[in-house]
Amino acid sequence: MQLHDFYLSGNCYKVRLFLGLIGQRAEIVTVDLAHGAQKRPEFLALNPRGQVPVLVDDGQPLVDSQAILVYLARRYGDEHWYPQDALSVGLIAGWLSLAANEVHHGAARARVGLKFGREIDLEEAQGRARQVLELVNAHLADRAWLVGDQPTVADVAVYPYLALADEGGLDLAPYPHLDAWFARIHALPGYVDLPR
Amino acid sequence: MQLHDFYLSGNCYKVRLFLGLIGQRAEIVTVDLAHGAQKRPEFLALNPRGQVPVLVDDGQPLVDSQAILVYLARRYGDEHWYPQDALSVGLIAGWLSLAANEVHHGAARARVGLKFGREIDLEEAQGRARQVLELVNAHLADRAWLVGDQPTVADVAVYPYLALADEGGLDLAPYPHLDAWFARIHALPGYVDLPR
Repeated sequence: MQLHDFYLSGNCYKVRLFLGLIGQRAEIVTVDLAHGAQKRPEFLALNPRGQVPVLVDDGQPLVDSQAILVYLARRYGDEHWYPQDALSVGLIAGWLSLAANEVHHGAARARVGLKFGREIDLEEAQGRARQVLELVNAHLADRAWLVGDQPTVADVAVYPYLALADEGGLDLAPYPHLDAWFARIHALPGYVDLPR
Repeated sequence: MQLHDFYLSGNCYKVRLFLGLIGQRAEIVTVDLAHGAQKRPEFLALNPRGQVPVLVDDGQPLVDSQAILVYLARRYGDEHWYPQDALSVGLIAGWLSLAANEVHHGAARARVGLKFGREIDLEEAQGRARQVLELVNAHLADRAWLVGDQPTVADVAVYPYLALADEGGLDLAPYPHLDAWFARIHALPGYVDLPR
């Protein structure tokens, strides 16, 4: 397995974290985002979307961090990471959409603005981020994990950019249930440190 | 089953279309988005994200249009709509992320701007939409369906806002493979008309 990766990307971290949690290894191929390597023809042949991460397994490229989690869980992970009953896959898919949309355009974007100096509407991104922080905090008030009573790919998909939200100028103090959830994730065997 | 629905929403249409394709029926509960019904406490109790569609099945709410497709496919649909091997679920999840993010912030947003007069950055939305139209058109150059050789929930998730992209001021003429794919979808038994 090769992971086309950029260390500081939270989306790439998602995959490295999950590889750790399921005890799998991939060869890391660094994609030089700073010099636009993700828009060069040889990379676009692998992923026409021009984004990292890309996982290549048995010669087959998989794109999009949520999709790579689902693939890895189904192929290599214990059942609890991606339970197959209709309700679980439905609830998990709802969190994967939140990761792809609201988390990406909120907490992740605010971080890109503040940490990497990209020109973005910081206030809008932080506003979206706070809505998500509040939503997830409320959801976790009486639950240990986002779906069911064990960790799933939903937790792995949503966790990174919320745990890194301080790098986007967001104060996590108002969200105690997030903090407790972060601690549960840190305690999982195979946990991989955040890319700060 | 109840579907909390707004007729003109492409996300709600996704669910109505898929219900038609798998021969299932739901009671339609119209949510009056024009008067902010999706932000009222009784709706937020159902979906804290304050968005339509919401499907309620056996008393269990499911939120997010992609998630509802996955749930319905797994619970009621033929296997081909959501095949369970690792590669298929991974590839499908990649398209569901595209629907949740790039399609939502591209073709869907341009339509919201032009059709519903919401204040948006139309040029940015149309630019994103064209990238997706090009991507999907190229992907379909030598394929009948987005994943594998039968229609899946990926097609149902990505199709609506691309087929409605003209309502966001986009010209679909440069994308002949999209047109052929639209025709294949129209020909599926149980097809439901677009909400124009």
